[in-house]
Amino acid sequence: LHRCEAQIDALRECGRLFHSRGWSVGTSSNYSAVVSTSPLRLVLTASGKDKGRLNRNDFVLVDENGAPTSDGQPKSSAETLLHIAVAQELPAGAILHTHSAWATVLSDVYGEQGWFDLEGFEMLKGLEGIATHETSHRVHIFENTQDIADLASRVRPRLHGDGAITHGYLIRKHGLYTWGATVEDARRHIEVYEFLFECFARQLMLTGEIPCAAAAAT
Amino acid sequence: LHRCEAQIDALRECGRLFHSRGWSVGTSSNYSAVVSTSPLRLVLTASGKDKGRLNRNDFVLVDENGAPTSDGQPKSSAETLLHIAVAQELPAGAILHTHSAWATVLSDVYGEQGWFDLEGFEMLKGLEGIATHETSHRVHIFENTQDIADLASRVRPRLHGDGAITHGYLIRKHGLYTWGATVEDARRHIEVYEFLFECFARQLMLTGEIPCAAAAAT
Amino acid sequence: LHRCEAQIDALRECGRLFHSRGWSVGTSSNYSAVVSTSPLRLVLTASGKDKGRLNRNDFVLVDENGAPTSDGQPKSSAETLLHIAVAQELPAGAILHTHSAWATVLSDVYGEQGWFDLEGFEMLKGLEGIATHETSHRVHIFENTQDIADLASRVRPRLHGDGAITHGYLIRKHGLYTWGATVEDARRHIEVYEFLFECFARQLMLTGEIPCAAAAAT
Amino acid sequence: LHRCEAQIDALRECGRLFHSRGWSVGTSSNYSAVVSTSPLRLVLTASGKDKGRLNRNDFVLVDENGAPTSDGQPKSSAETLLHIAVAQELPAGAILHTHSAWATVLSDVYGEQGWFDLEGFEMLKGLEGIATHETSHRVHIFENTQDIADLASRVRPRLHGDGAITHGYLIRKHGLYTWGATVEDARRHIEVYEFLFECFARQLMLTGEIPCAAAAAT
Repeated sequence: LHRCEAQIDALRECGRLFHSRGWSVGTSSNYSAVVSTSPLRLVLTASGKDKGRLNRNDFVLVDENGAPTSDGQPKSSAETLLHIAVAQELPAGAILHTHSAWATVLSDVYGEQGWFDLEGFEMLKGLEGIATHETSHRVHIFENTQDIADLASRVRPRLHGDGAITHGYLIRKHGLYTWGATVEDARRHIEVYEFLFECFARQLMLTGEIPCAAAAAT
Repeated sequence: LHRCEAQIDALRECGRLFHSRGWSVGTSSNYSAVVSTSPLRLVLTASGKDKGRLNRNDFVLVDENGAPTSDGQPKSSAETLLHIAVAQELPAGAILHTHSAWATVLSDVYGEQGWFDLEGFEMLKGLEGIATHETSHRVHIFENTQDIADLASRVRPRLHGDGAITHGYLIRKHGLYTWGATVEDARRHIEVYEFLFECFARQLMLTGEIPCAAAAAT
Repeated sequence: LHRCEAQIDALRECGRLFHSRGWSVGTSSNYSAVVSTSPLRLVLTASGKDKGRLNRNDFVLVDENGAPTSDGQPKSSAETLLHIAVAQELPAGAILHTHSAWATVLSDVYGEQGWFDLEGFEMLKGLEGIATHETSHRVHIFENTQDIADLASRVRPRLHGDGAITHGYLIRKHGLYTWGATVEDARRHIEVYEFLFECFARQLMLTGEIPCAAAAAT
Repeated sequence: LHRCEAQIDALRECGRLFHSRGWSVGTSSNYSAVVSTSPLRLVLTASGKDKGRLNRNDFVLVDENGAPTSDGQPKSSAETLLHIAVAQELPAGAILHTHSAWATVLSDVYGEQGWFDLEGFEMLKGLEGIATHETSHRVHIFENTQDIADLASRVRPRLHGDGAITHGYLIRKHGLYTWGATVEDARRHIEVYEFLFECFARQLMLTGEIPCAAAAAT
């Protein structure tokens, strides 16, 4: 893991930040960075670690099947295949998965509908390639499952074509996956999504408009 | 207390974290770790200390009756017997008690009913031994009292048998008790419960569904 | 100010904590400690300082009239007389005044009524001398004014007799005053009140019960 | 940039504070300080930097047209002209722009109306020159746009005359601009506005009064 120490340290700093925000508590969440693309190698948080206090040896190097590249490494996260899916389908350099309270709640309130739209926020420009607030960004929600291989196979085709998932998605009552060209970009996307979820939910609380809207759409 | 310095330091770190989160303010809360099981010895926070700034000598070593093992130690928490109860009934290595705002509020809103259920959250897997989000986890609520011996005697039988309390419980308008094999495990359980209370309460605020549900059940 | 450096440092630490919590932002709040009782001398935060970054020379030593005891000191807070009032009427060793969002909001929602009750919370035991949660603690609210001398004269008689204000009070859309035998005790009271305001307000948001209740009582 | 290192360091500290509060996440926000007034020179955060981790070279020195004063500097923020507008129209020494969740939400809920009033709060005295809580302070809201030159030209005339914008304004679903004689003063204004937005919004959530009020006014 020597050659990817800088990436590991950047992921550790993500852990400290996200844990302090309450987005990666209870040893939830997992983070990865792409070390090489051919062959595909990812460095990924090991399973069950406290994300606020990651050590350098709390990571595992995995191959394109999600298997450790060598013996004696800690167990990789159960959700390794979701990281592999993004790394294979998109030119992502880092994939971050967090569990925030609003991601959890909104993914359930809009779970039947399968999506909600974030519209007109200046903060949307924090998502790579979005140049104006006059954007409607759809957040897609997948049903949660413990069959990660199945979930990965459902996610893969959605990353291409019309209405493709461009920057991230939610898993119902579970959390957010997002990615970027670098750890810094992916970290920015986490901050942007979490801010937008916060705004979206607070506005719903203030105006009392959501439950019906979501219900009507189901 | 020499031989349990590592446990004491782990509990002090819990205090810093929980105080910063607002779960252990106003000198509330108490934390313990099992030093030996036969005879039972617990190291426990002394009464009335600021949990965000615990010193090594803010702890007391108590026996299976909750009495200090030697003179000259600070006064142990009034709730010592609740720690003893869990340590005697279950194979717990650490017991943590916190006072968060949501634990306080939810324990009252659902107090008449005596419980509420946390269902379908991925975060439930953070509770030891739960392997799938397809779980319904009942949070039991005890009426508060200043008669701790009585409360302890009400808690003990609920830790066994059908519908046993497995990971933690609430005391009405008071707070959360949880435990684990180690301080780290118990700390993870605190984070998991607090996250789930947060999600549960925010969803109720967003959808406006609770008061009636709780009322109907009473 | 040499002989009261320990008290000043304890108040500075209060400032760092309360600012980080959002209870003393925008240079609001002021804190004092009693240096001697006869003659009465208080060390008090100077006017207009950032409470999160107090220096030792951001304090002023005042006499029983609220006047600086020597020239060349910074200007004392406009609310000095409210500190003097408590220090003269009660055996308080420290007086802390904070501006939190919930203190501000609750003091207005219940402003016409002039009080609200905190009942049945275990956390009430964090207020000095309260030994059981089976307590109803009335939080009194004074109308805000820029005439501090007048406000001080309205507060003084309320600190004695039947239904006396025992631990603290609110000023409408302004903030909380509380005190204790030491800076530590007063700091604990701030944490206790803020926690209880948080619980009280969240329960109102969850159950939707307040506005009417407060309105009905007016 | 040598001669303005103290101002740059003060802006960097603003960044650390505002990022920790969640008001400047996702590389949003930009901050400036006036280095000289004739000719006008501002030191300004470069585009796209993480505000929680600003380095000294994450700033650019711009002239009265918003152009860099020398080659080889990083790109200045897209919103440079909004900083120039305030610096030219008012005797401001620093201009700070943040993106908080409540600023975003309130600016939209009251967006059609174009303003909301903050009344009777003691914290209003934190805005320079306001000496009493018996003040009604109108927060004006501008529609968001990517045409910053146009927005700047709409803001300029509103900084003068009857009902002039005195301390700050909101851009809809975007954020807050405020300023002050020094970085410290502008930073205090950010804290004051954010506190007041928090109080205003929480009171609306508690009493459920807003949506209609805002709707009625449209």
